[in-house]
Order: sequence, then C-alpha cells, then structure tokens
Amino acid sequence: MSLQLKIDSARISRHLDRLAEFTDAPPPAVTRVLFTPTDIQARQFIRELMEDVGLDFRADPAGNLFGRWIGSEPGLPAVATGSHCDAIPHSGRYDGTVGVIGAIEAIAALRAAGFQPRRSLDVIMFNAEEPTRYGIGCLGSRIMSGRLSPEAADGLKDEQGESFATTRTKVGSSGSLTSVRLSKDTYRAFVELHIEQGPLLEQQNLPIGIVTAIAAPAALRVKFTGEGGHAGAVLMPQRKDALLPAAELALAVERAALELGGADTVATVGILEVHPGAINSIPSRCEMTIDVRDIDLARRDRVLGEIQKQIETIGMKRRIVPQVTMINADPPATCDAQVIAAITAAADDSKLPAQPMISRAYHDSLFMALVAPTSMIFIPCRRGVSHRPDEYSSPEAIRSGVEVLARTLARLSYD
Amino acid sequence: MSLQLKIDSARISRHLDRLAEFTDAPPPAVTRVLFTPTDIQARQFIRELMEDVGLDFRADPAGNLFGRWIGSEPGLPAVATGSHCDAIPHSGRYDGTVGVIGAIEAIAALRAAGFQPRRSLDVIMFNAEEPTRYGIGCLGSRIMSGRLSPEAADGLKDEQGESFATTRTKVGSSGSLTSVRLSKDTYRAFVELHIEQGPLLEQQNLPIGIVTAIAAPAALRVKFTGEGGHAGAVLMPQRKDALLPAAELALAVERAALELGGADTVATVGILEVHPGAINSIPSRCEMTIDVRDIDLARRDRVLGEIQKQIETIGMKRRIVPQVTMINADPPATCDAQVIAAITAAADDSKLPAQPMISRAYHDSLFMALVAPTSMIFIPCRRGVSHRPDEYSSPEAIRSGVEVLARTLARLSYD
Repeated sequence: MSLQLKIDSARISRHLDRLAEFTDAPPPAVTRVLFTPTDIQARQFIRELMEDVGLDFRADPAGNLFGRWIGSEPGLPAVATGSHCDAIPHSGRYDGTVGVIGAIEAIAALRAAGFQPRRSLDVIMFNAEEPTRYGIGCLGSRIMSGRLSPEAADGLKDEQGESFATTRTKVGSSGSLTSVRLSKDTYRAFVELHIEQGPLLEQQNLPIGIVTAIAAPAALRVKFTGEGGHAGAVLMPQRKDALLPAAELALAVERAALELGGADTVATVGILEVHPGAINSIPSRCEMTIDVRDIDLARRDRVLGEIQKQIETIGMKRRIVPQVTMINADPPATCDAQVIAAITAAADDSKLPAQPMISRAYHDSLFMALVAPTSMIFIPCRRGVSHRPDEYSSPEAIRSGVEVLARTLARLSYD
Repeated sequence: MSLQLKIDSARISRHLDRLAEFTDAPPPAVTRVLFTPTDIQARQFIRELMEDVGLDFRADPAGNLFGRWIGSEPGLPAVATGSHCDAIPHSGRYDGTVGVIGAIEAIAALRAAGFQPRRSLDVIMFNAEEPTRYGIGCLGSRIMSGRLSPEAADGLKDEQGESFATTRTKVGSSGSLTSVRLSKDTYRAFVELHIEQGPLLEQQNLPIGIVTAIAAPAALRVKFTGEGGHAGAVLMPQRKDALLPAAELALAVERAALELGGADTVATVGILEVHPGAINSIPSRCEMTIDVRDIDLARRDRVLGEIQKQIETIGMKRRIVPQVTMINADPPATCDAQVIAAITAAADDSKLPAQPMISRAYHDSLFMALVAPTSMIFIPCRRGVSHRPDEYSSPEAIRSGVEVLARTLARLSYD
C-alpha cells in the first residue's frame, strides 16, 4: 500500500508528557491506579484525544474505553489496537501509554493521508492491565476474553475491602459485566504496540520486534500468620516470627527458578509486607506475592510446583500454617500468522528492520489472543528498563512503532 | 511505715480505658505516636489527671510532662516515678500507661491516707519511649540523661523528613533542649512501675517483680539498593533484586542469636519494607531494622558483630552495597541496691510476695539509671504478651503494683 504517512512525533511526546502529569507519585515517577481520582482524570484525557481525531467514543461497563473509526463496510468484524494507561506504584511513563496514544496518533496519520478503512478500526484503552488495585493483572481484557467471569470480576476486592462492583458503579461504570465479553466475531484482528520492557531490540539496534508468543504468567499470594510480641521480652525458642518463613520462601523462589527453570524462566517476590512493622515488635503476620513466568508452560508449572512444595515444607518447619491463594495461572499465547505477516509487511513498507521475538512480560494481548487473531509490535526502550521512573523510549523509536502500527491497521482493514 | 492505703482500682481501670480511646488504630488495638493529634489529646488527658490530684504541672522543652507534689523539705533532691504513654502501631493499652496512671493513683492514695512527703515527689510522663516516629527509643529519657545531645535530638527526622525541632515547636514545646538534661542532684531515686512484658511472674504466680538489671539493647537500620525492573522481562542472571539480600540477612540475624547468643539473647527483624512493592516489579530497594538485646554486653556485642559481618558478606555476594546505620547501642543498666531495698520493704508492707528479676525489654529506667539511683516494679501480664492488642494486666495485678509503688515512694521520700 502506498500511503504517504506523516507521524507527528512532537504531538505524541506532548500527549505522553501530559498523561504523565496524572500521577500520585512525585514526577518523574508515575503511579496511576484504577478508578482513583488521578486515573479518572487520565481517562478523561484519553477520551478527549479519541474524540479529537474523530473516533466514536464508548465505554463498556467494566470501564474499558473504545474509540471507533467506522469503516466502509461496518458489518464486517473490525480491527482493533490498544493497550493500557494504568501504572504500578513508582513506575514510568511509557509502559502501555505508548500503545494507546500511539494508536490514536496512527489513526490521525491515516486520516491525514486520506486513508479510508474498509473494516472499522477500534482503539481500546484496557482497564487495569496492572494488578495494583485488585491483585490480578489484565482485568479489562480478562473479562473481555471470558477468562474472568462477570461474577468473579465484580467480587474482586481491593485492599480496603471494596469490591470492583462497588467501585466501578461509584465512578459511573455501571451495568452488568455480561456485555463486556467479546464474541469471536467481534474482531478480525488485534495488534498492540508496546515498549519491549527488555534489552534485546536495543542491543541489536533494531527498531521493531514482532511478537510471536507471550510467556505464561502465574502468581500466588502467600500469608504467614505467626505470633507477635515484644522484641525484647519473648525468648528465641518461644517465637513464631512470621517474617522468617517469608524470608526462607523468597530465597526458595529464586532457587527454584535458577535450578529447575530454563534461561527464560523468571520468578519474583515483588511484595512482602510485615505486620505490625515496628523495630521492637516480632512480626505477627507476613504477606507476600510470587510471580513466575516462562514461555514453556510445562517448565513454568515445574517451577511453580517446587515453590508450592517449599511453602509446605517451610510452614511445617516453622510451625506456621501458610495460606496460599492462586491469583492466576494463565497459559502462554501463540500469535497469529496472518497478523504477524501484516506487521512484517508494514515494517517492510516503512523500511524498518524487524525481527520476530517473544514477550516475557504479559499484556492484554495474552487475553485478546483468546478471542481474536493477535500479535504485538515491540519498540526498544533504554537498557530494557521498565516499571521504574527512568523507563524511556525515544521519540524516534515511538515514531517508528506508530508508523508500523498505522500501516498494519491499514492492511488488516482491507484483509 | 504503717500507712492505711486505699488504691482505687476502679478509677485506674476507667482512666486506662479512657486513655486507650486516644488511638489511631481500631480498638482494641492502640496506636499513639509522638505529637500526632491523638497523642496531643492523650497528653492533655494526663495533664488533667496530674492536676486533679493536686500536682504542680510542667512540661520541659522536649515535651516530657512532670507533676510535682512538693515535699516538706523542697530543697532536697526529689524522688521520681513515671513511664510513657505512647504506643507502637497496633499494640495494647498497658505498656507504659500503667506506670503513668498508676503513679498518679499512688499519689492520690498517699494524699488520701494523710501522708506528707519530705522529699518532693515527681510523676513523669516520658516522651516517645517507643521508637515509632524517630526510629530511636526513649527519646525523652535519653535527652534527660545526657545520652542524646540537644543538637542530635533536634536533628532527628521522621519518615516525612520533619525534624524533632520543627515538630516540637509546632506543637508548642519550644525552647532550647539544653535545660532538659537532669543533673545527678535532681533525683534521689527513680522507680518505674511497668507490666513485665514476659511470662515469668504469671508462670510463678507472683504479683511483684523487682528489677535488678535492664538488658542492653542495640539496633541497626540496613538499606539495600538494587535494581528494579519488570518481573517478566529481566532475566534472572541480570537481576539485582534488593529483597533477596534482606531475606538472607533476616535469616542470618536469627542464626547469629541462636548460635552465638545465650538463653537471654534475642535478635529481631521487626521492619522490612520493599520498594516499589508491586507483584510484577523486581524490588529495587529494601529497608530493614535489626534489634539485638542481651543482659550480657559482651555477648550482645558478639552477636552484633556477627550480624555486621553477615551484612558485608551478603552484600558482597549479591553485588549490592549495604548502607548500615547504627540506631543505638546502649549498655545494660544495673539497678540501685537502696531502691531495690525500698521496693522489697514496700512489697513486704503490702504482704505481697516479690522476686528479683531482669528486664529484657528496655525502658526509660535504662537512661534514668545514668542520672539517678533506679529500679523498677514489674507486675504480671497475661501470657507475657505485649505490643499486641491482646496485651492484658488484671485490675488486681495493677492494684498490687500501685500499692507497692506508693509505699516505695513514701519510704524513699524519707530516705
């Protein structure tokens, strides 16, 4: 397709800058948690951007946002793109946001070039890709894909004990979640533009990665309840310190990944909270999370199994019964050959070298792949850093990603 | 001395109940942190109780509260008693408070019995015995004893970075801290009534313990700064996870106490904070505290030395340079034979069996012992539990303690 595309790189930067101002952490750190006042402001900003480029806006009852450019054959399954705008505590400004603001800019560029889509094009901002508020990631896309039932979703509780049903209703996303689920006819294809969150593209000086598979993530929450007391008065043999089994488990998680996993296996304890948390109090309760990922499902489950065995062993040894909750254990996603081919051709049209790769981070694409042929476009980010305030992707890297996304959408729209 | 003393047990209970209502945690838990609005209310309540029994009230620039019953020979060094009313997060209602409200009640009982002191009697409410706000315990008595200089005290910062100088001035405790320090002539003796915070008195069915020594406490703060990143994207060999050295250190602290300490050595990691604390983020920073105590100073320092060696070793192995701050390393206190004798005689007058014992928890008495002959009166508490919402000492146990305290003060006043 010989489209003359002009991507407005300065405008993308301006919009990313503006979005980063909606934060509950001091800049450059970004903290933006689902349905907080800050998140609500960010959502309003995204809505305005969608409407500014002429998209028909709608929000579903889960709070996912959609902007549609109606195609010349509106009865055909549409083509969708998008990502998320929430940010875990003290993270950066590019994770997710590049795929939302970039998608809107791709639409603007296609319009300016006189392009007319055949299939309608949807830009989606998915709700709560990050697990910050409800402990489970990809909330919006999980419901859309049917992987999370409306009842289970509405019953999720945040740290204050408030349910998703209550919170979403409070902020005006009311109505049954049943309508959120997509049928397999909704979309002909889904493509997500995202920063790599790893160092490979930068190391190889490549502007574009084409995702062929997304690693299988699993997550556990473990709670140890011991016995508190005064750190001076309770002698060592009488103690049931809740932190010590948690410390043993954190080390066992690392060991399981290193000894039973492969080069692609990662396992992380990201949260470890000690109660009551005073210098002179014996920890009475400790809660932690364990996150395990691999592109090989069997290997991931072997590591997960070893961790579960260790939880039992440590609890027995320490005379503390662990409470274990499986947060999620999702299968890996294989990307669609036709969507991959469309991205490959689009990169070629853009004269940008591209390489197939695997996503080790998980994304809304993991769930969209259950209801639509899916792939992802990766762009490099500095030193592979993500989920940190110094996360960075250059305007030129983003421009290249947006051009490839625009050309991919154009191709898929006529597919 | 044949004093007919009537201790109003019901009034003590009422006052303890009322004081427990000044809490920032849901009852029965108590959280009362220095110079918070809740603490200010509690201080006002204590002031009123002091004035109700006819004590002359004053507060020093550090915010320690004093109530004086002027003796018949006001030029003599006075006799003091008291304790603290602050409470660490989610703790109980008896730690410290029994020694303040009990002291006021002892004064009331002595007055009602027609007693007239020779030496003046001071009731003291010490500031911030708990380390919650500034990370260091016994703030008030440390300054009074000269163990903490006025400059160092004023320079202490809380988590929000606000200095003690700023906070105390804001709440009206202004002026130089120089006048806070006591001379060795100020007090003839100091006696503190306190719950045991250990199980020994209850196990032996004894109403009164007489403290002959207070264990030597030391505390460290250790910070590991690693490298954060996305828990899915950064492969295991590339990581510098800040939680893992902290987990190793927590286990090393336990091991050092068990292997190098004696039956009385205790070592605790009470605080361990993980940053950023998200399920899918590699911990970039971890801060923890280590508290070590022993009645044997050499043995405590041996355990402390091993822990410091382990901090280095772990940091080296994990390629993370640890930042270590010594919060305090205080010597043990030996109690005064004459004060012990006065308590022993007072228990005898009260027909209450008493036993000499060691305090493993530390108290303002540890510092008062540097400037005045000092001992403590311990009373039993249920199952030795302290620093927990279920901390409990019976009205009868408290009544016995207050009677012994009153008779001790009467004796020392004529000493």
